Amino acid sequence: MFIKERLFTPGPVPLPPQVIKALGQQIIHHRTPEFTEIFLNTRKNFQKLLKTDRDVLIFASSGSGAMEASVLNFFKKGDMVLIINAGKFGQRWKELASTFELKIVDYEITWGKTYDKDRIIEIIGEFPNLKGIFVQHSETSTTTLHDIKFLAEVKNKLDDCILVVDGITSVGVYEVYPDELGIDVLVTGSQKALMLPPGLSILYYSSKAEERLSSSNIPKYYFDVKKEAKKQINGQTAFTPAINLILGLNESLKLILEEGVPKLAERHRILAEMTREAVKEIGLKLLSKSPANSATGVLTPEGLNADDLRKELLKLGFRVAGGQDHLKGKIIRIAHMGYFDFMDVIQVISALEIALYRMGYNVEIGKGVKKAQEILIEKIKTD
Amino acid sequence: MFIKERLFTPGPVPLPPQVIKALGQQIIHHRTPEFTEIFLNTRKNFQKLLKTDRDVLIFASSGSGAMEASVLNFFKKGDMVLIINAGKFGQRWKELASTFELKIVDYEITWGKTYDKDRIIEIIGEFPNLKGIFVQHSETSTTTLHDIKFLAEVKNKLDDCILVVDGITSVGVYEVYPDELGIDVLVTGSQKALMLPPGLSILYYSSKAEERLSSSNIPKYYFDVKKEAKKQINGQTAFTPAINLILGLNESLKLILEEGVPKLAERHRILAEMTREAVKEIGLKLLSKSPANSATGVLTPEGLNADDLRKELLKLGFRVAGGQDHLKGKIIRIAHMGYFDFMDVIQVISALEIALYRMGYNVEIGKGVKKAQEILIEKIKTD
Repeated sequence: MFIKERLFTPGPVPLPPQVIKALGQQIIHHRTPEFTEIFLNTRKNFQKLLKTDRDVLIFASSGSGAMEASVLNFFKKGDMVLIINAGKFGQRWKELASTFELKIVDYEITWGKTYDKDRIIEIIGEFPNLKGIFVQHSETSTTTLHDIKFLAEVKNKLDDCILVVDGITSVGVYEVYPDELGIDVLVTGSQKALMLPPGLSILYYSSKAEERLSSSNIPKYYFDVKKEAKKQINGQTAFTPAINLILGLNESLKLILEEGVPKLAERHRILAEMTREAVKEIGLKLLSKSPANSATGVLTPEGLNADDLRKELLKLGFRVAGGQDHLKGKIIRIAHMGYFDFMDVIQVISALEIALYRMGYNVEIGKGVKKAQEILIEKIKTD
Repeated sequence: MFIKERLFTPGPVPLPPQVIKALGQQIIHHRTPEFTEIFLNTRKNFQKLLKTDRDVLIFASSGSGAMEASVLNFFKKGDMVLIINAGKFGQRWKELASTFELKIVDYEITWGKTYDKDRIIEIIGEFPNLKGIFVQHSETSTTTLHDIKFLAEVKNKLDDCILVVDGITSVGVYEVYPDELGIDVLVTGSQKALMLPPGLSILYYSSKAEERLSSSNIPKYYFDVKKEAKKQINGQTAFTPAINLILGLNESLKLILEEGVPKLAERHRILAEMTREAVKEIGLKLLSKSPANSATGVLTPEGLNADDLRKELLKLGFRVAGGQDHLKGKIIRIAHMGYFDFMDVIQVISALEIALYRMGYNVEIGKGVKKAQEILIEKIKTD
């Protein structure tokens, strides 16, 4: 069967034509005024995306690189930190903190749920000397949103605590303005809502976080924020930058700022709502009790292996993600962040219906699509 | 509203990534063994597409160029020809025949209908000296299919008559094998099911047509088949070729032959069936009494201007074609030839429903989509 491959995975994500063009252009040398100008412009536009005047650093690494930088540069060995550990990427914070000898308060949460506010208050009562709280804004492995504002209020009650947020699947999906939200360290990566291939990570840090740079005693070389910041402020980098990815980021930021962050956030809200409501209409259940707008985790019914469903979807050209660790075979994750419009959701829901039908699941063809269409019509009405 | 632009027009058509890559590559010089090799390979693969050993010429022109070549090279001034004139492109045959002083039997047919066999038999009884029959295999302006086999039988009954077929929107949609079908001259263009930008036309001619080359007395220079054939057989061209379009054609033919022409024809049959049945389910009427699989002409109901509907569809990102001449404002034409898969149809039908709803037309949301999904499910079952 002739099919087009369509990517609905939470990274990598489809690339806009403007980005593809930028990536495919002839290389330019990075130690030139030409590159410097583009790089400064890209960084300035990233500040606009985050609505901040604070510096934003770009690393040639995957998102985990900037996550590592967050630990290396803003903490000291033995610092006590709270990890909101509610999925695969919560675990990653824990692994990083442990590797670099921080002391960990591990708040483990059932996958698919968010934290409990009372429990957080208990924890800070018990550990008033916390130096940091680590959290995912959007936990990609469980497609769950964690409220950031509350954690920012909490850390403000403590003596000397910073809030470190993994925004890898939230920047470009939500209005993530770290100055307003009270985020001290914010990390993101290129291969999600920034609509780029993997290879860039981005780091924001507050003035409160900056004060810690000189006292941090964890050895670091590649992810040295002080060293990198000194270079990047002048439009250069401490190490060879991922040149064409930066040319691509320059383009994708143009697209994002052209749409405008509030409108972009509203679009993602509707993409997510269409997906969630259609999935429920089909008769399936959502994994998350606090679903994020970046991707939708869907539990498959008893007796229907999620990975078989993914294979069936792939036959129709649709690549969605599966579950990780103990969720393997139990969920599919349908991404809708970045270069997606409403008609993409219509398509993936239609494919989901057909795939389920073919697997013998009792689905009423067209029901989910209709629901998604109706939500879209409502949205256009109020536009 | 953030929307992706989606092209459902009967030319230009969406380009496959492999073609875009080929088009975007650095130019190569055409008077080189490198180009010759690619050009010979492209022509050989075009012969495979047409299942023929006969020569196939490629011109740097739009499809109308090869249409002109068909008149210039295979007729003499004063030759009597029958024009199956059932739409905009039937008219084009007439204009060409008239410009180059052929005598015309103009069989005018209501737009949206095909010819009547009895009427054809009457005509050849009346004009037994016909030197040619001109027809569109698929008349793009009315999305109508004309039967070729019958016309081939008819011309065989005549003394010295050739069948000239405009296959611009049929080659790459149907199994168009001119040797088997009895076509003498077949014309096509790059910007339709060949999945390329405009700029190439292709000409096939039978041995019967070839015999006429020396006796043809119409002045010609650029579209001189004899001159061109002598060059192209050796992998060169009489005039500068459209180099990157040929690199693109080389790629698109690879895609087409990889799928295989029978499967490709079956895909187009289903794309068309999904579209037609969904449109009827929505409550709209088809323009054509003999619909082609390349595009679907849809009559809009009284009081609903088709061009307003097109504008509404464009707001959702979908560009479809309108009607020409007296059909302007009365129809939309949804193309589904070339780089389309079944999920593309699902999408355009969903958009059509939403657009109609927004214009106040009484449409049951999801009904057409469901119909298209059901046809697709049936198709996969028997695969």
